[in-house]
Amino acid sequence: MRLRSCPCSSPRWTTASRPRSPTSLVARIRSSDLGYLDGPGPLAPAFSAFADRRWGWKVDPARIHLATDVSVGIVETLRLALPDGGRVAITPPVYPPFFELVEEARAEIAEVPLLETWGTWSLDLPGLEAAFAAGAGVFLLCNPHNPVGLVHDRQTLEALADLAARYDVLVVSDEIHGPLTHPGVRFEPFAPIAEARGARSVVVTSASKGWNLAGVKCSIVVAGDDRTAELLDRLNDEVACRTSILGLHANVRALSCTDWLDDAIDKIVANDRLLSQLLTEHLPGVVYHRPRAGYLAWLDFRGIGLGDDPALPLREHAYVALNSGLGFGDQGRGFARLNLACSPDTLREAVTRIASAYPASMQGSLVWRVA
Amino acid sequence: MRLRSCPCSSPRWTTASRPRSPTSLVARIRSSDLGYLDGPGPLAPAFSAFADRRWGWKVDPARIHLATDVSVGIVETLRLALPDGGRVAITPPVYPPFFELVEEARAEIAEVPLLETWGTWSLDLPGLEAAFAAGAGVFLLCNPHNPVGLVHDRQTLEALADLAARYDVLVVSDEIHGPLTHPGVRFEPFAPIAEARGARSVVVTSASKGWNLAGVKCSIVVAGDDRTAELLDRLNDEVACRTSILGLHANVRALSCTDWLDDAIDKIVANDRLLSQLLTEHLPGVVYHRPRAGYLAWLDFRGIGLGDDPALPLREHAYVALNSGLGFGDQGRGFARLNLACSPDTLREAVTRIASAYPASMQGSLVWRVA
Ligand SMILES: Cc1ncc(COP(=O)(O)O)c(C=O)c1O
Ligand SMILES: Cc1ncc(COP(=O)(O)O)c(C=O)c1O
Repeated sequence: MRLRSCPCSSPRWTTASRPRSPTSLVARIRSSDLGYLDGPGPLAPAFSAFADRRWGWKVDPARIHLATDVSVGIVETLRLALPDGGRVAITPPVYPPFFELVEEARAEIAEVPLLETWGTWSLDLPGLEAAFAAGAGVFLLCNPHNPVGLVHDRQTLEALADLAARYDVLVVSDEIHGPLTHPGVRFEPFAPIAEARGARSVVVTSASKGWNLAGVKCSIVVAGDDRTAELLDRLNDEVACRTSILGLHANVRALSCTDWLDDAIDKIVANDRLLSQLLTEHLPGVVYHRPRAGYLAWLDFRGIGLGDDPALPLREHAYVALNSGLGFGDQGRGFARLNLACSPDTLREAVTRIASAYPASMQGSLVWRVA
Repeated sequence: MRLRSCPCSSPRWTTASRPRSPTSLVARIRSSDLGYLDGPGPLAPAFSAFADRRWGWKVDPARIHLATDVSVGIVETLRLALPDGGRVAITPPVYPPFFELVEEARAEIAEVPLLETWGTWSLDLPGLEAAFAAGAGVFLLCNPHNPVGLVHDRQTLEALADLAARYDVLVVSDEIHGPLTHPGVRFEPFAPIAEARGARSVVVTSASKGWNLAGVKCSIVVAGDDRTAELLDRLNDEVACRTSILGLHANVRALSCTDWLDDAIDKIVANDRLLSQLLTEHLPGVVYHRPRAGYLAWLDFRGIGLGDDPALPLREHAYVALNSGLGFGDQGRGFARLNLACSPDTLREAVTRIASAYPASMQGSLVWRVA
């Protein structure tokens, strides 16, 4: 596996499994249509149609804004919501740049760790209420949650919306992994739930994870309600100009390619199953709670004694490069993150290399794993 | 002419005159190479080679950073240089977003208007010295200057570097129009001049204007000296991630296509000459100081009495959409900006429409113009 310096890896398939010639982009390039954007244009109705078909979410296209990527969408929203600084709640272990984006917006972090009970992760609603009561102005929700692949259920999101309404907290919901929800699981966009309960929300998303377009730079920022729509109308005009026109057209085209998306999800789910089998067989001491969305596997190495940062010895001794768990917050101590969006052979190779790098005595036992 | 909502228009040629199939981008797309960037990669040596061949500027590739576009490069540099706010000198009439970028970085503006003497524009060096002495921490230099097409000469830039060194002011030099310097004029990158005189500088540039790639989103930020290199090493890692991989490859390819660039410049210069003739013939009351770089014509309508914002009546009565002069600062009152990067027929049509929309009595006289 290749080491990646950016913590935000996207699916990497072999060329053979990619969608065939992306004629939409090529046509733009051949006609030299490479000038500035000044708004979401065709992406607004394209996203609206996708969200309605996929999740039954009816988004008013007028509430959709453009940004370079999801990170920029988040940081610019935080700057608007907390112009004089303030506190932003996040729920570690969580996508590492969340820490940096809050800092970039010159706000403070309030950590409300996810709860884990019997291998099931969930939001700590009382913890969030305490943070809201203590003055957090924004909650940065990861929906679905990277790295644990948690898809928040409707009941939890309704309770969250009630809390946000009560304390007038703006919820910024990062839904970039939403399109990659696994079959049989229901993904709930947060905005309609929030709006129905009088809470303010912003959804930031993109086709960049689902269709692997992270480097073409285009995301959307959706106001969930009228009050938030007014806030986002104050977004600097330059923000839309900073979005790639090729990224926009790639997003428009992707959102209509749900066959490709479903096929990618099937491959991820097959890999998830494979990894689970491989671990049971070769590394029973590694605990893996299977994700319900996305292509990320959050692996608990604590049972096999690889120290606080298993990614380091794994790279050094097994020549397998995983993302260090430490960047995800203190809760990542002893964990590492693996990207399932690869060929099954890569997964087999990774697990085999790890298993053969360590003596069986270090690998724990099946009993350990179930405990 | 089409009305553009973004003030930062780029050359628009007919499709026929574009470079042939941009195979570099198409190849990237066909191989689905659309993931994250984490640094300038091949763009650093490509820019170094271009800058050396074109201007004799030897840039250490290690001093080159990546940003989404020139505006982001400027605002992120300002944020680093003035973390607690401060004052930024700018020289209106100037590219309108300069005002907004300073505000975005939460700094204050110190205006030091350009001087105009007998139709020649220049930096007001004593004015700049006063602003530096009064505490401006950064000078945002437009080199070449949009909208007047001024290419600062070496002597002026040396004097500026001496002032910057004396007052320890960081000069951020926006050199996006540098590649479009007209034949017979010498463009001077500011960084080597500054470094030789002990002044700190950052150059922000891109192939986006010269080769019309503004919508693909990629620019570079160059540290001019060791102290500034340390400053830019503190740029948020996310900034490179926010740059388009297609934009990067388009920039790499463009910088090797100097034939195309020279051909574009020839067309601009021919249009500049044509506009000058057309105005003399049909609108002698409009004053036009011909640019020495770039594709922008800064037109003084004050002699023909179209009010503070000639772009408004011109759009309404002549159906010609120019950029309003007002966005460029108070000095833009009575002015409008025209984009020469169009077909000669568009220019003829524009001037003819304006001339026929107003009675000859309003158009001033040749005497007026020369005066
Ligand atoms: C939850 C989450 N948000 C945001 C991002 C980054 O998105 P972007 O590249 O659009 O900023 C990632 C990338 O992995 C992610 O997992
Ligand atoms: C002087 C100057 N700087 C910057 C820009 C904008 O560059 P970018 O789109 O890379 O932010 C322009 C666009 O016209 C410009 O004229």
